[in-house]
Amino acid sequence: MTNQKNDFTSWYIDTIQKADLMDYTPVRGCIAFKPDGFEIWEHIQGEMDRRFKETGHRNAYFPMLIPENFFQKEKDHIEGFSPELPWVTEAAGEKLEERLALRPTSETMIGHLYSDWIKSYRDLPVLINQWANVFRWEKKTLPFIRTSEFLWQEGHTAHADETEAREETMRMLQIYKEVVEDFLAIPVYDGEKTPSERFAGAVDTFSIEAMMKDGKAVQAGTSHYLGTKFAEAFDIKYLNKENKHVYAHTTSWGTSTRLIGSVIMVHGDEQGLVLPPTIAPTQVILIPVGPWKKRPEIIEKLDEIFAALKAKGIRVRLDDSDQSPGYKFNEWELKGVPVRLELGPRDFDNAQILMKARDEADKVTLELDIDAVVATVETELTTMQKRLYDKAKAFREEHSHTDVDTLEQLHQHITEKQAMEEIPGWVLAGWCGDDACEEHVKQETKFTTRNMPFNPPTEKKVCINCGKEAKHTVWFGRAY
Amino acid sequence: MTNQKNDFTSWYIDTIQKADLMDYTPVRGCIAFKPDGFEIWEHIQGEMDRRFKETGHRNAYFPMLIPENFFQKEKDHIEGFSPELPWVTEAAGEKLEERLALRPTSETMIGHLYSDWIKSYRDLPVLINQWANVFRWEKKTLPFIRTSEFLWQEGHTAHADETEAREETMRMLQIYKEVVEDFLAIPVYDGEKTPSERFAGAVDTFSIEAMMKDGKAVQAGTSHYLGTKFAEAFDIKYLNKENKHVYAHTTSWGTSTRLIGSVIMVHGDEQGLVLPPTIAPTQVILIPVGPWKKRPEIIEKLDEIFAALKAKGIRVRLDDSDQSPGYKFNEWELKGVPVRLELGPRDFDNAQILMKARDEADKVTLELDIDAVVATVETELTTMQKRLYDKAKAFREEHSHTDVDTLEQLHQHITEKQAMEEIPGWVLAGWCGDDACEEHVKQETKFTTRNMPFNPPTEKKVCINCGKEAKHTVWFGRAY
Repeated sequence: MTNQKNDFTSWYIDTIQKADLMDYTPVRGCIAFKPDGFEIWEHIQGEMDRRFKETGHRNAYFPMLIPENFFQKEKDHIEGFSPELPWVTEAAGEKLEERLALRPTSETMIGHLYSDWIKSYRDLPVLINQWANVFRWEKKTLPFIRTSEFLWQEGHTAHADETEAREETMRMLQIYKEVVEDFLAIPVYDGEKTPSERFAGAVDTFSIEAMMKDGKAVQAGTSHYLGTKFAEAFDIKYLNKENKHVYAHTTSWGTSTRLIGSVIMVHGDEQGLVLPPTIAPTQVILIPVGPWKKRPEIIEKLDEIFAALKAKGIRVRLDDSDQSPGYKFNEWELKGVPVRLELGPRDFDNAQILMKARDEADKVTLELDIDAVVATVETELTTMQKRLYDKAKAFREEHSHTDVDTLEQLHQHITEKQAMEEIPGWVLAGWCGDDACEEHVKQETKFTTRNMPFNPPTEKKVCINCGKEAKHTVWFGRAY
Repeated sequence: MTNQKNDFTSWYIDTIQKADLMDYTPVRGCIAFKPDGFEIWEHIQGEMDRRFKETGHRNAYFPMLIPENFFQKEKDHIEGFSPELPWVTEAAGEKLEERLALRPTSETMIGHLYSDWIKSYRDLPVLINQWANVFRWEKKTLPFIRTSEFLWQEGHTAHADETEAREETMRMLQIYKEVVEDFLAIPVYDGEKTPSERFAGAVDTFSIEAMMKDGKAVQAGTSHYLGTKFAEAFDIKYLNKENKHVYAHTTSWGTSTRLIGSVIMVHGDEQGLVLPPTIAPTQVILIPVGPWKKRPEIIEKLDEIFAALKAKGIRVRLDDSDQSPGYKFNEWELKGVPVRLELGPRDFDNAQILMKARDEADKVTLELDIDAVVATVETELTTMQKRLYDKAKAFREEHSHTDVDTLEQLHQHITEKQAMEEIPGWVLAGWCGDDACEEHVKQETKFTTRNMPFNPPTEKKVCINCGKEAKHTVWFGRAY
């Protein structure tokens, strides 16, 4: 396997293919999600969906094809998305009168329908989410992280006023933060995007940003306050309590299968995947070692442990194939299985069994007592989840720099890190609010604004580019 | 609302719109699934998915866009599907070199990938399912039943030999039958399709067929044995235990959102939807009646019942809006809520509460004791599920005719039923196996072959059309 430190991207592609998460297809930029890759998504989906429903949202499904004229209605939206749209122009042997876009996102179709569904303040709020496939025909693609077709959820809500809509925008960003931190063990910075990085058509965009092991950022989720922009474009008006027709305030928010890529790039190591127990298709792998074939009681004992773990709802597998133990260790490490139990004749005779956590160097010897083994494994799965988060957080802190104040210092920082073969990570810097300053930093260093964090470790006083007074404190970094 | 007996189709469209299950969209034949409609699908999905996983299947996701040359590889497949395909011809401002079809089903894309994934007998069986949107650009559409875009699951499996593949084909048909009968309370006939009604590219197609209240059939699920046809077209070969390269045997099987339409057409009545408790978004509706606003203890008691039902995992709502009780009764009946509880001052003073099951004429008086009410409601939900199945089955038996043996008798049967303003239902008849006979019956009567049931109520001796010896006993009926 490619070395992670030397060539992160090749390591990533190697890992996800060898771990059997995906495959390329003959359609440009479209991948197939194999069962292990898709199951990770199912676990993420399950957790997100539960939290959406707990907060009063319901799922719906809207058409995938969007008439061209819908895009014309919101000018920023069409500008943002039209370069990436695939178009259906013929169907059932006939040329269509109007081209139909494969949805890149559904604000327009949903806006059109909401204008019918929302007539009175009694109809509000509308809290709907959709799980769907979407299309953005991008030039450069990378499996899970940026593909022409991907899977996501898009929430679309409508509210009586700005206050409620802004509360919703923040509520969903907070849910994203909790799921990504608690469930995927990935620490994130939450904050507001700069205007140039806003969603096409939003008044304000907020994001959670995660740092990968190569120091690059992944925008792991976004939540948009759309104001009345889509309401005006699609005439989403309602009769308020004062008997006046006014525009609804809308929001939208989304997370996608790029979360799968993020998990891999945050936790993976030189041996391959490292999966948080919450999302691992297999949480515990049982492997017989040594000359176990001569000792049927070894498999019998592993079968008992298997049954006891399964009864606790743990996703467990037993690998009794003909391969050598070393081969199996490698294979299941590559697949990121959190906990391995090994049992051989000598251990059996000593009434013990070995446990190895995927992210720890040493094996632990346990007493060969089923109840005790199950209890220890359960604890280990919880502990490991927390430990992965802590490790990822320590890594991020180590590579989050707050001592860069000028463009010159940023250049110097990058050069120094490069010389030491270290990653540049992110820098927290001041920004005057001028698009040109942001653009200049990007042109010079490829560092883009990630977000303006709600809780920056420190407040910056001067703009990194022009040196004038800073209006915002911003995370800058290279990004996927 | 339109009368169900007089104009079934208008009744259906009226009902699903007023019950807020769907909405039309500006894209031809594409509907929006509103939350109540989509939740029905989520319940069906949940049950199906659980059973697929129990039988060793895993989910995956394949690209939606399929290169044109893939369709050319299996000649029956392209003939069957090409008249209905929508095509992407441009993307990101450029004309594509090859057109990409919006998948009508995924045998071709999956066949292409399986040929890479399957190399040895150790790789078999491959048991994969996909939940996805698919497209068939049909001329005549009807919400849920036949739409240009719909949601479905498609299972695609590969096996070492014919025996295993045929076992899988039957296993999945059996799961469909169990889910549709037990979970949707719809009795079905399981059997084999005639060659003319086979899936494009299948060796054998099996189906479950359900009778709607207008006597028409819905094919509620199909399972196909594909033999080595797709394996040959896409080169799915593996090294068997004898060290020979041989073709895998594949299957595919699917059910779709037309199940939502079937539930409505099987159980609905003049008052609107009647939903089996298993899939009802709201299972119990609590309604305060009479001058309840002067008596806060009424709402307090309903709140307690609400909490107690919710604690049991029952999907319950309390309607304390300003509308009249009569209005509410109608509205929640229209939405098909299985059980209604009504509480007014007089009942309260008499320590009683009224319960009404959606499908029964009379209200039942219950003692106003929370535990007792909860227990009775739980029982009623189970009983009603069974009762809906029994009613649907009685209806189907009443309209399944086994006394029609010739085309003349079929004409007579149809004429008689028409004269009495009754539905013609289905007839069980013999068939010689000749396509021309099947086609002639269809041309003359619009009765098509539904399937050749595994367990026909009786065996037919002569072909309904030509009078020669019957090779098969077949259900004939009009169909959606």
